[in-house]
Amino acid sequence: MRSDGRQFEETRAVTITPNYIKHAEGSVLIEVGETKVICTASIEEKVPPFMKGQGRGWITAEYSMLPRATQVRNQREAAKGKIGGRTMEIQRLIGRALRSVVSLEALGERTITLDCDVIQADGGTRTTSITGSFVALCYAVNKLLQNHKLSKSPITDYLASVSVGIVKNRVCLDLNYEEDSQAKVDMNVVMTGLGKFVEVQGTGEEAPFSREELDALLASAEIGIRSMIDKQKEALGPLTAIVGGNSGAVSGNK
Amino acid sequence: MRSDGRQFEETRAVTITPNYIKHAEGSVLIEVGETKVICTASIEEKVPPFMKGQGRGWITAEYSMLPRATQVRNQREAAKGKIGGRTMEIQRLIGRALRSVVSLEALGERTITLDCDVIQADGGTRTTSITGSFVALCYAVNKLLQNHKLSKSPITDYLASVSVGIVKNRVCLDLNYEEDSQAKVDMNVVMTGLGKFVEVQGTGEEAPFSREELDALLASAEIGIRSMIDKQKEALGPLTAIVGGNSGAVSGNK
Amino acid sequence: MRSDGRQFEETRAVTITPNYIKHAEGSVLIEVGETKVICTASIEEKVPPFMKGQGRGWITAEYSMLPRATQVRNQREAAKGKIGGRTMEIQRLIGRALRSVVSLEALGERTITLDCDVIQADGGTRTTSITGSFVALCYAVNKLLQNHKLSKSPITDYLASVSVGIVKNRVCLDLNYEEDSQAKVDMNVVMTGLGKFVEVQGTGEEAPFSREELDALLASAEIGIRSMIDKQKEALGPLTAIVGGNSGAVSGNK
Amino acid sequence: MRSDGRQFEETRAVTITPNYIKHAEGSVLIEVGETKVICTASIEEKVPPFMKGQGRGWITAEYSMLPRATQVRNQREAAKGKIGGRTMEIQRLIGRALRSVVSLEALGERTITLDCDVIQADGGTRTTSITGSFVALCYAVNKLLQNHKLSKSPITDYLASVSVGIVKNRVCLDLNYEEDSQAKVDMNVVMTGLGKFVEVQGTGEEAPFSREELDALLASAEIGIRSMIDKQKEALGPLTAIVGGNSGAVSGNK
Amino acid sequence: MRSDGRQFEETRAVTITPNYIKHAEGSVLIEVGETKVICTASIEEKVPPFMKGQGRGWITAEYSMLPRATQVRNQREAAKGKIGGRTMEIQRLIGRALRSVVSLEALGERTITLDCDVIQADGGTRTTSITGSFVALCYAVNKLLQNHKLSKSPITDYLASVSVGIVKNRVCLDLNYEEDSQAKVDMNVVMTGLGKFVEVQGTGEEAPFSREELDALLASAEIGIRSMIDKQKEALGPLTAIVGGNSGAVSGNK
Amino acid sequence: MRSDGRQFEETRAVTITPNYIKHAEGSVLIEVGETKVICTASIEEKVPPFMKGQGRGWITAEYSMLPRATQVRNQREAAKGKIGGRTMEIQRLIGRALRSVVSLEALGERTITLDCDVIQADGGTRTTSITGSFVALCYAVNKLLQNHKLSKSPITDYLASVSVGIVKNRVCLDLNYEEDSQAKVDMNVVMTGLGKFVEVQGTGEEAPFSREELDALLASAEIGIRSMIDKQKEALGPLTAIVGGNSGAVSGNK
Repeated sequence: MRSDGRQFEETRAVTITPNYIKHAEGSVLIEVGETKVICTASIEEKVPPFMKGQGRGWITAEYSMLPRATQVRNQREAAKGKIGGRTMEIQRLIGRALRSVVSLEALGERTITLDCDVIQADGGTRTTSITGSFVALCYAVNKLLQNHKLSKSPITDYLASVSVGIVKNRVCLDLNYEEDSQAKVDMNVVMTGLGKFVEVQGTGEEAPFSREELDALLASAEIGIRSMIDKQKEALGPLTAIVGGNSGAVSGNK
Repeated sequence: MRSDGRQFEETRAVTITPNYIKHAEGSVLIEVGETKVICTASIEEKVPPFMKGQGRGWITAEYSMLPRATQVRNQREAAKGKIGGRTMEIQRLIGRALRSVVSLEALGERTITLDCDVIQADGGTRTTSITGSFVALCYAVNKLLQNHKLSKSPITDYLASVSVGIVKNRVCLDLNYEEDSQAKVDMNVVMTGLGKFVEVQGTGEEAPFSREELDALLASAEIGIRSMIDKQKEALGPLTAIVGGNSGAVSGNK
Repeated sequence: MRSDGRQFEETRAVTITPNYIKHAEGSVLIEVGETKVICTASIEEKVPPFMKGQGRGWITAEYSMLPRATQVRNQREAAKGKIGGRTMEIQRLIGRALRSVVSLEALGERTITLDCDVIQADGGTRTTSITGSFVALCYAVNKLLQNHKLSKSPITDYLASVSVGIVKNRVCLDLNYEEDSQAKVDMNVVMTGLGKFVEVQGTGEEAPFSREELDALLASAEIGIRSMIDKQKEALGPLTAIVGGNSGAVSGNK
Repeated sequence: MRSDGRQFEETRAVTITPNYIKHAEGSVLIEVGETKVICTASIEEKVPPFMKGQGRGWITAEYSMLPRATQVRNQREAAKGKIGGRTMEIQRLIGRALRSVVSLEALGERTITLDCDVIQADGGTRTTSITGSFVALCYAVNKLLQNHKLSKSPITDYLASVSVGIVKNRVCLDLNYEEDSQAKVDMNVVMTGLGKFVEVQGTGEEAPFSREELDALLASAEIGIRSMIDKQKEALGPLTAIVGGNSGAVSGNK
Repeated sequence: MRSDGRQFEETRAVTITPNYIKHAEGSVLIEVGETKVICTASIEEKVPPFMKGQGRGWITAEYSMLPRATQVRNQREAAKGKIGGRTMEIQRLIGRALRSVVSLEALGERTITLDCDVIQADGGTRTTSITGSFVALCYAVNKLLQNHKLSKSPITDYLASVSVGIVKNRVCLDLNYEEDSQAKVDMNVVMTGLGKFVEVQGTGEEAPFSREELDALLASAEIGIRSMIDKQKEALGPLTAIVGGNSGAVSGNK
Repeated sequence: MRSDGRQFEETRAVTITPNYIKHAEGSVLIEVGETKVICTASIEEKVPPFMKGQGRGWITAEYSMLPRATQVRNQREAAKGKIGGRTMEIQRLIGRALRSVVSLEALGERTITLDCDVIQADGGTRTTSITGSFVALCYAVNKLLQNHKLSKSPITDYLASVSVGIVKNRVCLDLNYEEDSQAKVDMNVVMTGLGKFVEVQGTGEEAPFSREELDALLASAEIGIRSMIDKQKEALGPLTAIVGGNSGAVSGNK
């Protein structure tokens, strides 16, 4: 058993509170255990300069932690005057992941920016940000549909993410901070509703890992992601229809 | 009557949720109408270099808005690589205000940093930050007392803040965003539990104001601040005892 | 009596040398006691991007101290790579104050930038900058009138500023550096020729202040500002006519 | 067949020129096809502040491209004043990968910095940097052994990296730039001499990938990495002995 | 004749006002024609980290222009967030030049910083800064002698600088801005009281120059520098004694 | 004799490898003794904003050292977040020097950027960069001629550079690092094929120098530059014809 009493293939409790920030086109507060992230989706009717005139849209993401989201206060990146490598890596990952399930052509020349602000951190902030952002994105797209700016949703499939790792020689799903700091191998996986991989990022800085371990980690991740997608569907309720029809498959596969 | 149905000398609804962030020594979520700010107090057992070896402590503050706290998304200061003038002005104000009711000698050589992160903005974010920070500070001081790092509270009085302004030729208390953007005169006032002024910052960029108007603004602010201090006492409950005894006076004055 | 022999309601000697920098459209060297500031007004025939096409002009200010304007050399902000909070606060104040007496519509789509460079500091550098900038601004507007770029002055009233404070329990007008560092309460006031307030910024970081003290500070500030406006009129000589007619009132009120 | 005539599981020609920069403790010019990277290893007899006094060493890496390493000149990061997200991601990856095969305890309190400067880019610059850096690191460790600063090598295994991807529906090993820009799935793999995974980073931004595709990509990567390790051994010659004995296994496995 | 009526080998009028800034250990306002520079010398009883414990002192310089020192307002480097190449080049030149006539050993472990702030520019700001800084440096050294921190002056010789150039095919001494912008060849020369060269910086960007032209430029510069040194002696009056005895030679040579 | 066995007026061995970087319009690896610099010339069909619409082109340069080009690793300027004074000085010098032998009118509205990246440093990196850049520039111009973007070369003359200095009281040509660090006087000279000076930068920080010493330094530099230009001609081979006809003179003069 794990230190917080969970089974090895059990995620933490997940709560998704929609429309958490009134100004945003889409927003949620997502809680995965003690990790809490505010995800907002902001629509702008323009694209970055390098994409102008191509008739395609853009999805991008920013990620930040409040200074006291962590056990020890960490200095603001605004105060340091620059964004750190870890932050950059995470926000590039979030943007890339979300773009994999959006048809940029169908979105049209507009940008949706996902802001993921971690207000309390207890492991898995980047995977939680992806899972929450997807729901915020659906709300924003729904607004575009309601306002007749889009006639058809550009979202092609569900998308969620979890972390997995090897802690004390056992494959564990959805690591909390304590587990994460003891893990020998750490992997973040992003998958679609159809069960395809979008990102697989495994690191064995502490100890290289074998092919068998890799297989076990991927299998555990798949279980977690299915569970996360179910939570997304609950949060979206009738809005689940705005996600591409092929995504029904996963639910059926379960 | 005002656009949201309030009386001219009426504040918006105030909610203070204590211990909102588990890692921080003190924290609250403060909501004043639709303005929502997370205030955390972080204790470090050291002081900035310029204060070393003087046996005195330090109180400082940082302020930020989430990018989508506002109607239109605003760029992160971390992304810009520098902190803007407005942010600097506000965080200097918050720190200065809180220091006015703390005996730095009694605090001893440690720093308490107040982080004020606006998650939703609807006017009055700086005054709400001050009012909320004071409660977070009390929680952090209480932790120092409980851990026997301090034997006596260094907090000498209550402290709260409100905005007042002249909107459509009427003095209004606690402006929301819509009122704030129409105000000809805008004033932020910080007062102690004993009813003394700590900061008076009035600006008539749109229209200079007379001495009579100034007097009316100050009188309205005093009403609002008394009301804010009552809310602080409710949130603090039995912890009200950690604030210096002389502060009972204001409540008595009412 | 005060340490430099002045009465409590007496300003320091004021000297305004017009046309101090040959390239600028308007310029003065203003000396208030030992505080010396070069103020230049630069006209550009364009406005910042956020104001384009509105037919209105813009007034902005920048403030800086030479590294050895102070008793101990302070590092250049250019060398640090960023502008400090105190500088930002001051330059925002100067710009806001000057805009309060200029009709931006009457100015037309052009920008006047006031540069205030403190070459020697002895207290009151921000208030001296405001008082000096107003004169530099008048000179620049005069040039626009002479060149027929404007047919009528957009300046609606005089504008000047002084500091007041409570030093050793006495209200003192126009603090020098020594007094400023001993003051329990410190206030900067900006007023128009008609005797209206534009900015009131009072801070009691060392000791909160009562309503009676606030009243006494404001009264003292008014005396100082009238005296500053008289000095401005002397410096402007026949150019006093370019300031809006209603401003004659103050002089008459004296 | 591939556009440059290679088989699908064939790497490009690899050349490793040792001791390329005379000042560095270790250095190589590594060429993988038309991709050319100078890797230097610099030893400093100190560790970063956060590691002081722990008796452990540190391995870190920096990565950069000359402005004209690419088809279109790209602006220097020094000129932009900040390091981009892609660079940060890559240099974090290189450092992490190399640390996985070094015993920091055995290294002792010193830092080895690997600088990877791409002088010509044609795809696979990050994997080439890892493969080349490992050789430069071996040279630097050899110098420590020769100078009797270390009595035993802290390097526990070989380490190399290749990219794999799915191009026109075929799994291809060691993508050149043209292939990389057409790839639907892109994966970078880092493995040890013993055939264990250190990093697996797969991205399907253009098209999510199935488990079968993932398996095929990993198998292809393993072939490529064995080939790279053989080239490292050739370049190291008698120095191969400084790599931990267990690493002989891979070569034997072939 | 030149556009301002001067002879080809005639400098502009030179005025040196000593003790211009009360806080600085040494200061002058130097005016060469319409070019006006405030030079201050600040003493700190420490040296930069890289010089600690060597028993030697350091002389360094910073240079800046007020935004409206020039015909068109130029943006502050503090606002840009970085110091430009021209400024860096000039401040490195000033520091290097002054160090050539100071015995750093005799100065002892202290730093003298020369700040050169151009308040009005009309050509020759870097040469004027050197000539003025030398006098400010003498005043600061005099203060060290008076306070018995030094028993003997570390200044070994006089030092001054002028510009020369080829304008309309004539060698001209001490170019003003108008001449400078028409010059085909531009040269800045720094010389000692003994007539030795410290810096020769000639640039023929517009037109390469012959050896004969170079000789004529150097001869003209020597005349100008002798004249500048005479002005320095006038300004220093009895303080001329603090400059090394060998420097009497130049004056005698005339 | 010199420490490396050279005569006082002898340069180090010079090797110029053309077309070193495949993507660049022009490129060389230039080696002068142990100093190695990659010079690339990149053509862009636009000019900087301040030059738009004048029908003239622009030549600019950037300079950098790899971190381990030097004996002790130096921190990357990208990591520091700003370009140092020495780098700025050098890149301004390179750009200015090359512009002196290019007719910007004949070049037309395009920019050629010369990137000089020092991969190994042993003295004379800036002079080597100039000599190498000139050849890279010729290659880039040749490409413009071949593509019929230009009908006639805008290069008016050859251009090369060497350093000279006074080491142990002897004038030495082309200093290596060891000599450079012992030199009392240090001079960089840039000359054209016709034997005219483009830049003369002599510094006597350690010891001012006499007119006789200056003359001897210039004579030595001229010998070195002629030798460098011969090497350029060898490297260019038949491309020598693209340099303006008047430059034959130097060769004839020898």
